[in-house]
Amino acid sequence: MDAVAQKKIAVIVGSGRTVRLGFEISNWFVEVSGLKKEFQVEVIDLVEWNLPYYDEVLPPMAIGGNYTTEIAKKWQAKIASFDGFVFVTPEYNHGYPAILKNAIDYLITEWQGKACLVVSYGYGGGVGVNTQLSNILSGKSPIQMKLTETRPKLLFHRGVFNEQGKFIDINTAFKEHIEEIQKSVQEMKAILQ
Amino acid sequence: MDAVAQKKIAVIVGSGRTVRLGFEISNWFVEVSGLKKEFQVEVIDLVEWNLPYYDEVLPPMAIGGNYTTEIAKKWQAKIASFDGFVFVTPEYNHGYPAILKNAIDYLITEWQGKACLVVSYGYGGGVGVNTQLSNILSGKSPIQMKLTETRPKLLFHRGVFNEQGKFIDINTAFKEHIEEIQKSVQEMKAILQ
Repeated sequence: MDAVAQKKIAVIVGSGRTVRLGFEISNWFVEVSGLKKEFQVEVIDLVEWNLPYYDEVLPPMAIGGNYTTEIAKKWQAKIASFDGFVFVTPEYNHGYPAILKNAIDYLITEWQGKACLVVSYGYGGGVGVNTQLSNILSGKSPIQMKLTETRPKLLFHRGVFNEQGKFIDINTAFKEHIEEIQKSVQEMKAILQ
Repeated sequence: MDAVAQKKIAVIVGSGRTVRLGFEISNWFVEVSGLKKEFQVEVIDLVEWNLPYYDEVLPPMAIGGNYTTEIAKKWQAKIASFDGFVFVTPEYNHGYPAILKNAIDYLITEWQGKACLVVSYGYGGGVGVNTQLSNILSGKSPIQMKLTETRPKLLFHRGVFNEQGKFIDINTAFKEHIEEIQKSVQEMKAILQ
Protein backbone atom coordinates (compact mmCIF):
# COMPACT_ATOMS: atom_id res chain seq x y z
CA MET A 1 0.00 0.00 0.00
CA ASP A 2 1.51 3.33 -1.05
CA ALA A 3 1.49 6.50 1.05
CA VAL A 4 -1.57 8.02 -0.59
CA ALA A 5 -3.56 4.79 -0.24
CA GLN A 6 -3.04 5.01 3.51
CA LYS A 7 -4.62 8.47 3.70
CA LYS A 8 -7.94 8.63 5.50
CA ILE A 9 -10.90 10.41 3.95
CA ALA A 10 -14.20 11.18 5.66
CA VAL A 11 -17.31 11.53 3.55
CA ILE A 12 -19.61 13.81 5.54
CA VAL A 13 -23.31 13.49 4.73
CA GLY A 14 -24.62 17.06 4.90
CA SER A 15 -28.32 16.32 5.24
CA GLY A 16 -29.97 15.40 8.54
CA ARG A 17 -33.60 14.68 7.78
CA THR A 18 -35.01 11.23 8.57
CA VAL A 19 -36.17 10.96 4.95
CA ARG A 20 -33.09 11.95 2.98
CA LEU A 21 -31.21 11.22 -0.21
CA GLY A 22 -27.84 12.13 1.29
CA PHE A 23 -26.81 8.61 2.24
CA GLU A 24 -27.68 7.00 -1.04
CA ILE A 25 -25.89 9.76 -2.94
CA SER A 26 -22.84 9.61 -0.63
CA ASN A 27 -22.53 5.83 -0.91
CA TRP A 28 -22.97 6.03 -4.67
CA PHE A 29 -20.28 8.70 -4.86
CA VAL A 30 -17.87 6.50 -2.89
CA GLU A 31 -18.49 3.63 -5.31
CA VAL A 32 -18.30 5.33 -8.70
CA SER A 33 -15.65 7.93 -7.88
CA GLY A 34 -12.87 5.46 -7.18
CA LEU A 35 -12.46 7.02 -3.73
CA LYS A 36 -12.19 3.61 -2.04
CA LYS A 37 -9.50 2.50 -4.47
CA GLU A 38 -7.36 5.50 -3.57
CA PHE A 39 -7.94 6.00 0.16
CA GLN A 40 -9.32 4.59 3.38
CA VAL A 41 -12.90 5.88 3.46
CA GLU A 42 -15.39 6.40 6.26
CA VAL A 43 -18.89 7.84 5.83
CA ILE A 44 -19.98 10.13 8.69
CA ASP A 45 -23.62 10.66 9.67
CA LEU A 46 -24.11 13.95 11.52
CA VAL A 47 -27.46 12.71 12.84
CA GLU A 48 -25.68 9.94 14.73
CA TRP A 49 -23.23 12.51 16.15
CA ASN A 50 -26.11 14.70 17.34
CA LEU A 51 -23.85 17.68 18.11
CA PRO A 52 -25.68 20.41 20.04
CA TYR A 53 -25.22 23.97 18.77
CA TYR A 54 -21.65 25.10 19.58
CA ASP A 55 -21.75 26.78 22.99
CA GLU A 56 -18.28 27.21 24.48
CA VAL A 57 -17.47 30.51 26.24
CA LEU A 58 -14.89 31.29 23.54
CA PRO A 59 -15.02 30.74 19.77
CA PRO A 60 -13.02 27.73 18.40
CA MET A 61 -10.29 30.04 17.12
CA ALA A 62 -9.66 31.38 20.65
CA ILE A 63 -10.12 28.12 22.54
CA GLY A 64 -6.88 26.49 21.38
CA GLY A 65 -8.42 23.05 21.15
CA ASN A 66 -9.44 22.97 24.85
CA TYR A 67 -13.06 21.98 24.43
CA THR A 68 -14.99 21.39 27.64
CA THR A 69 -17.65 18.89 26.58
CA GLU A 70 -17.19 15.18 25.91
CA ILE A 71 -18.98 15.36 22.58
CA ALA A 72 -16.77 18.23 21.36
CA LYS A 73 -13.61 16.36 22.38
CA LYS A 74 -14.85 13.27 20.59
CA TRP A 75 -15.71 15.24 17.44
CA GLN A 76 -12.33 16.96 17.60
CA ALA A 77 -10.48 13.63 17.81
CA LYS A 78 -12.59 12.18 15.00
CA ILE A 79 -11.99 15.02 12.56
CA ALA A 80 -8.30 15.29 13.49
CA SER A 81 -7.86 11.66 12.43
CA PHE A 82 -8.61 12.36 8.73
CA ASP A 83 -6.40 13.71 5.96
CA GLY A 84 -9.20 14.91 3.76
CA PHE A 85 -12.96 15.37 3.51
CA VAL A 86 -15.75 15.00 1.00
CA PHE A 87 -18.78 17.11 1.91
CA VAL A 88 -21.89 15.74 0.18
CA THR A 89 -24.63 18.29 0.60
CA PRO A 90 -28.15 19.21 -0.48
CA GLU A 91 -29.04 22.83 -1.14
CA TYR A 92 -31.39 24.52 1.29
CA ASN A 93 -32.44 27.96 0.06
CA HIS A 94 -29.31 28.43 -2.01
CA GLY A 95 -27.11 27.64 1.04
CA TYR A 96 -25.83 24.88 3.34
CA PRO A 97 -27.86 22.87 5.87
CA ALA A 98 -27.66 24.05 9.49
CA ILE A 99 -26.57 20.61 10.76
CA LEU A 100 -23.54 20.70 8.44
CA LYS A 101 -22.55 24.27 9.30
CA ASN A 102 -22.75 23.54 13.04
CA ALA A 103 -20.47 20.50 12.66
CA ILE A 104 -17.94 22.62 10.75
CA ASP A 105 -18.10 25.57 13.15
CA TYR A 106 -17.22 23.32 16.14
CA LEU A 107 -13.57 23.08 15.12
CA ILE A 108 -10.90 25.02 13.32
CA THR A 109 -7.33 23.66 13.32
CA GLU A 110 -8.64 20.12 12.73
CA TRP A 111 -9.88 21.22 9.28
CA GLN A 112 -7.10 23.58 8.27
CA GLY A 113 -4.70 22.51 5.53
CA LYS A 114 -6.64 19.31 4.81
CA ALA A 115 -7.81 18.21 1.36
CA CYS A 116 -11.45 18.95 0.60
CA LEU A 117 -14.00 18.06 -2.04
CA VAL A 118 -17.47 19.63 -2.16
CA VAL A 119 -20.25 17.65 -3.85
CA SER A 120 -23.69 19.24 -4.07
CA TYR A 121 -27.00 17.97 -5.42
CA GLY A 122 -30.40 19.36 -6.31
CA TYR A 123 -32.62 20.53 -9.16
CA GLY A 124 -30.08 23.20 -10.03
CA GLY A 125 -27.19 20.95 -9.04
CA GLY A 126 -26.84 22.90 -5.80
CA VAL A 127 -24.80 25.67 -7.42
CA GLY A 128 -25.57 28.04 -4.55
CA VAL A 129 -24.60 25.67 -1.73
CA ASN A 130 -21.52 24.52 -3.63
CA THR A 131 -20.27 28.11 -3.84
CA GLN A 132 -21.26 29.13 -0.30
CA LEU A 133 -19.77 26.00 1.25
CA SER A 134 -16.54 26.39 -0.71
CA ASN A 135 -16.33 29.99 0.53
CA ILE A 136 -16.57 29.00 4.19
CA LEU A 137 -14.03 26.18 3.79
CA SER A 138 -11.38 28.28 2.09
CA GLY A 139 -11.07 31.66 0.38
CA LYS A 140 -11.44 34.46 2.94
CA SER A 141 -12.67 32.11 5.68
CA PRO A 142 -10.43 31.32 8.68
CA ILE A 143 -10.86 27.66 7.70
CA GLN A 144 -8.14 27.19 5.12
CA MET A 145 -8.71 23.84 3.47
CA LYS A 146 -7.22 22.73 0.16
CA LEU A 147 -10.19 22.46 -2.19
CA THR A 148 -10.23 20.46 -5.38
CA GLU A 149 -10.80 22.54 -8.50
CA THR A 150 -13.57 20.21 -9.67
CA ARG A 151 -16.57 20.24 -7.31
CA PRO A 152 -19.42 18.15 -8.77
CA LYS A 153 -22.90 19.64 -8.85
CA LEU A 154 -25.22 16.66 -9.28
CA LEU A 155 -28.28 17.68 -11.24
CA PHE A 156 -31.72 16.23 -10.48
CA HIS A 157 -33.84 15.72 -13.57
CA ARG A 158 -37.59 15.18 -13.60
CA GLY A 159 -38.45 11.51 -13.94
CA VAL A 160 -35.51 10.13 -11.97
CA PHE A 161 -37.60 9.64 -8.80
CA ASN A 162 -40.38 7.18 -8.14
CA GLU A 163 -43.63 8.04 -6.32
CA GLN A 164 -41.93 7.59 -2.95
CA GLY A 165 -39.33 10.19 -3.87
CA LYS A 166 -36.53 7.60 -4.19
CA PHE A 167 -34.16 7.25 -7.13
CA ILE A 168 -35.46 4.79 -9.72
CA ASP A 169 -31.80 4.19 -10.72
CA ILE A 170 -29.14 6.49 -9.33
CA ASN A 171 -26.59 5.33 -11.93
CA THR A 172 -28.83 6.54 -14.73
CA ALA A 173 -29.85 9.69 -12.83
CA PHE A 174 -26.28 10.93 -12.47
CA LYS A 175 -24.67 9.21 -15.47
CA GLU A 176 -23.49 12.51 -16.96
CA HIS A 177 -21.43 13.31 -13.83
CA ILE A 178 -19.31 10.17 -13.48
CA GLU A 179 -16.30 11.40 -15.43
CA GLU A 180 -16.25 14.70 -13.52
CA ILE A 181 -16.58 12.83 -10.20
CA GLN A 182 -13.59 10.62 -10.96
CA LYS A 183 -11.62 13.71 -11.97
CA SER A 184 -12.42 15.37 -8.62
CA VAL A 185 -11.06 12.37 -6.71
CA GLN A 186 -7.87 12.40 -8.77
CA GLU A 187 -7.47 16.07 -7.85
CA MET A 188 -7.85 15.14 -4.19
CA LYS A 189 -5.18 12.49 -4.67
CA ALA A 190 -2.85 15.09 -6.19
CA ILE A 191 -3.43 17.40 -3.20
CA LEU A 192 -2.49 14.57 -0.83
CA GLN A 193 0.59 13.38 -2.72
CA MET B 1 -50.77 56.03 14.10
CA ASP B 2 -50.19 55.83 10.35
CA ALA B 3 -50.19 52.64 8.29
CA VAL B 4 -46.41 52.15 8.37
CA ALA B 5 -46.24 52.70 12.13
CA GLN B 6 -48.61 49.75 12.55
CA LYS B 7 -46.27 47.41 10.68
CA LYS B 8 -44.69 44.71 12.78
CA ILE B 9 -40.96 44.06 12.60
CA ALA B 10 -39.11 41.12 14.18
CA VAL B 11 -35.47 41.56 15.11
CA ILE B 12 -34.00 38.05 14.99
CA VAL B 13 -30.86 37.55 17.06
CA GLY B 14 -28.68 35.25 14.96
CA SER B 15 -26.34 34.00 17.65
CA GLY B 16 -27.22 31.22 20.06
CA ARG B 17 -24.30 30.87 22.44
CA THR B 18 -24.88 31.37 26.18
CA VAL B 19 -22.11 33.99 26.16
CA ARG B 20 -23.04 36.21 23.23
CA LEU B 21 -22.98 39.79 22.06
CA GLY B 22 -26.03 39.35 19.82
CA PHE B 23 -28.59 40.61 22.31
CA GLU B 24 -26.70 43.71 23.32
CA ILE B 25 -26.05 44.57 19.67
CA SER B 26 -29.67 43.86 18.68
CA ASN B 27 -31.10 45.99 21.48
CA TRP B 28 -28.64 48.77 20.69
CA PHE B 29 -29.64 48.61 17.02
CA VAL B 30 -33.32 48.93 17.94
CA GLU B 31 -32.55 52.03 20.03
CA VAL B 32 -30.24 54.01 17.76
CA SER B 33 -31.77 53.04 14.41
CA GLY B 34 -35.14 54.66 15.05
CA LEU B 35 -36.80 51.29 14.37
CA LYS B 36 -39.14 51.65 17.38
CA LYS B 37 -40.25 55.10 16.22
CA GLU B 38 -41.30 53.70 12.86
CA PHE B 39 -42.70 50.26 13.63
CA GLN B 40 -43.91 47.84 16.28
CA VAL B 41 -40.77 45.89 17.21
CA GLU B 42 -40.22 42.49 18.81
CA VAL B 43 -36.82 40.92 19.47
CA ILE B 44 -36.75 37.14 18.89
CA ASP B 45 -34.34 34.81 20.69
CA LEU B 46 -33.80 31.58 18.73
CA VAL B 47 -32.41 29.91 21.86
CA GLU B 48 -35.79 30.35 23.57
CA TRP B 49 -37.49 28.86 20.49
CA ASN B 50 -35.20 25.84 20.58
CA LEU B 51 -36.25 24.58 17.13
CA PRO B 52 -34.94 21.07 16.39
CA TYR B 53 -33.34 20.59 12.96
CA TYR B 54 -36.09 20.66 10.31
CA ASP B 55 -37.29 17.09 9.81
CA GLU B 56 -40.58 16.91 7.92
CA VAL B 57 -40.98 14.23 5.22
CA LEU B 58 -41.19 16.96 2.55
CA PRO B 59 -39.23 20.19 2.21
CA PRO B 60 -41.07 23.43 3.20
CA MET B 61 -41.64 24.34 -0.45
CA ALA B 62 -43.55 21.09 -1.03
CA ILE B 63 -45.39 20.94 2.28
CA GLY B 64 -47.82 23.81 1.55
CA GLY B 65 -47.71 25.08 5.12
CA ASN B 66 -49.00 21.81 6.59
CA TYR B 67 -46.36 21.29 9.27
CA THR B 68 -46.88 18.32 11.55
CA THR B 69 -45.15 19.41 14.77
CA GLU B 70 -46.46 21.87 17.34
CA ILE B 71 -43.21 23.83 17.40
CA ALA B 72 -43.21 24.23 13.59
CA LYS B 73 -46.83 25.43 13.60
CA LYS B 74 -46.01 27.90 16.36
CA TRP B 75 -42.93 29.19 14.50
CA GLN B 76 -44.98 29.44 11.30
CA ALA B 77 -47.69 31.51 13.02
CA LYS B 78 -45.09 33.72 14.69
CA ILE B 79 -43.18 34.54 11.50
CA ALA B 80 -46.41 34.98 9.49
CA SER B 81 -47.44 37.73 11.92
CA PHE B 82 -44.61 40.09 10.89
CA ASP B 83 -44.30 42.46 7.95
CA GLY B 84 -40.53 42.67 8.02
CA PHE B 85 -37.38 41.31 9.63
CA VAL B 86 -34.03 42.53 10.86
CA PHE B 87 -31.47 39.71 11.03
CA VAL B 88 -28.65 40.64 13.42
CA THR B 89 -25.88 38.12 12.95
CA PRO B 90 -22.31 37.29 13.89
CA GLU B 91 -19.99 35.79 11.30
CA TYR B 92 -18.93 32.18 11.79
CA ASN B 93 -16.24 31.17 9.29
CA HIS B 94 -17.33 33.73 6.73
CA GLY B 95 -20.93 32.42 6.89
CA TYR B 96 -24.14 32.36 8.94
CA PRO B 97 -24.69 30.54 12.27
CA ALA B 98 -26.40 27.15 12.06
CA ILE B 99 -29.14 28.15 14.53
CA LEU B 100 -30.15 31.06 12.27
CA LYS B 101 -30.10 29.00 9.06
CA ASN B 102 -32.24 26.28 10.62
CA ALA B 103 -34.84 28.84 11.74
CA ILE B 104 -34.96 30.28 8.21
CA ASP B 105 -35.12 26.87 6.48
CA TYR B 106 -38.21 25.85 8.52
CA LEU B 107 -40.50 28.08 6.48
CA ILE B 108 -40.87 29.57 3.03
CA THR B 109 -44.05 31.49 2.18
CA GLU B 110 -44.01 33.16 5.61
CA TRP B 111 -40.79 34.98 4.60
CA GLN B 112 -41.52 35.65 0.93
CA GLY B 113 -42.22 39.23 -0.16
CA LYS B 114 -41.49 40.65 3.31
CA ALA B 115 -39.11 43.52 4.03
CA CYS B 116 -35.68 42.48 5.24
CA LEU B 117 -32.62 44.13 6.73
CA VAL B 118 -29.36 42.24 7.33
CA VAL B 119 -27.03 43.56 10.05
CA SER B 120 -23.73 41.75 10.59
CA TYR B 121 -20.94 42.25 13.09
CA GLY B 122 -17.36 41.10 13.60
CA TYR B 123 -13.72 42.06 13.22
CA GLY B 124 -14.22 42.35 9.48
CA GLY B 125 -17.75 43.70 9.94
CA GLY B 126 -19.09 40.30 8.94
CA VAL B 127 -18.78 40.99 5.22
CA GLY B 128 -18.92 37.27 4.42
CA VAL B 129 -22.04 36.48 6.44
CA ASN B 130 -23.75 39.65 5.25
CA THR B 131 -23.30 38.56 1.64
CA GLN B 132 -24.11 34.87 2.18
CA LEU B 133 -27.22 35.65 4.25
CA SER B 134 -28.45 38.19 1.71
CA ASN B 135 -28.00 35.56 -1.01
CA ILE B 136 -30.17 33.00 0.79
CA LEU B 137 -32.88 35.57 1.58
CA SER B 138 -33.22 36.88 -1.95
CA GLY B 139 -31.33 36.74 -5.25
CA LYS B 140 -31.46 33.23 -6.71
CA SER B 141 -32.86 31.69 -3.49
CA PRO B 142 -36.46 30.46 -3.38
CA ILE B 143 -36.90 32.85 -0.42
CA GLN B 144 -37.72 36.11 -2.13
CA MET B 145 -37.58 38.84 0.49
CA LYS B 146 -37.30 42.57 -0.23
CA LEU B 147 -33.86 43.52 1.07
CA THR B 148 -32.81 47.03 1.95
CA GLU B 149 -29.93 48.33 -0.14
CA THR B 150 -28.01 49.40 2.97
CA ARG B 151 -27.01 46.41 5.12
CA PRO B 152 -24.80 47.57 8.03
CA LYS B 153 -21.57 45.69 8.72
CA LEU B 154 -20.65 46.63 12.28
CA LEU B 155 -16.89 46.63 12.65
CA PHE B 156 -15.20 45.49 15.86
CA HIS B 157 -12.07 47.47 16.71
CA ARG B 158 -9.40 46.41 19.19
CA GLY B 159 -9.87 48.12 22.54
CA VAL B 160 -13.67 48.23 22.49
CA PHE B 161 -14.00 45.17 24.76
CA ASN B 162 -13.12 44.81 28.44
CA GLU B 163 -11.35 41.78 29.92
CA GLN B 164 -14.63 39.86 30.15
CA GLY B 165 -15.19 40.33 26.43
CA LYS B 166 -18.06 42.81 26.92
CA PHE B 167 -18.37 46.19 25.21
CA ILE B 168 -16.85 49.00 27.29
CA ASP B 169 -19.28 51.37 25.56
CA ILE B 170 -21.25 50.10 22.57
CA ASN B 171 -22.18 53.66 21.51
CA THR B 172 -18.52 54.55 21.11
CA ALA B 173 -17.65 51.16 19.57
CA PHE B 174 -20.14 51.55 16.70
CA LYS B 175 -20.34 55.35 16.51
CA GLU B 176 -19.26 55.39 12.86
CA HIS B 177 -22.22 53.23 11.84
CA ILE B 178 -25.14 55.21 13.30
CA GLU B 179 -25.93 57.26 10.22
CA GLU B 180 -25.85 54.16 7.98
CA ILE B 181 -28.05 52.26 10.43
CA GLN B 182 -30.69 54.99 10.40
CA LYS B 183 -30.55 55.03 6.61
CA SER B 184 -31.18 51.27 6.50
CA VAL B 185 -34.32 51.64 8.60
CA GLN B 186 -35.61 54.43 6.37
CA GLU B 187 -35.10 52.08 3.41
CA MET B 188 -37.14 49.44 5.22
CA LYS B 189 -39.85 52.04 5.79
CA ALA B 190 -39.86 52.85 2.07
CA ILE B 191 -40.24 49.14 1.22
CA LEU B 192 -43.24 48.91 3.54
CA GLN B 193 -44.98 52.08 2.37
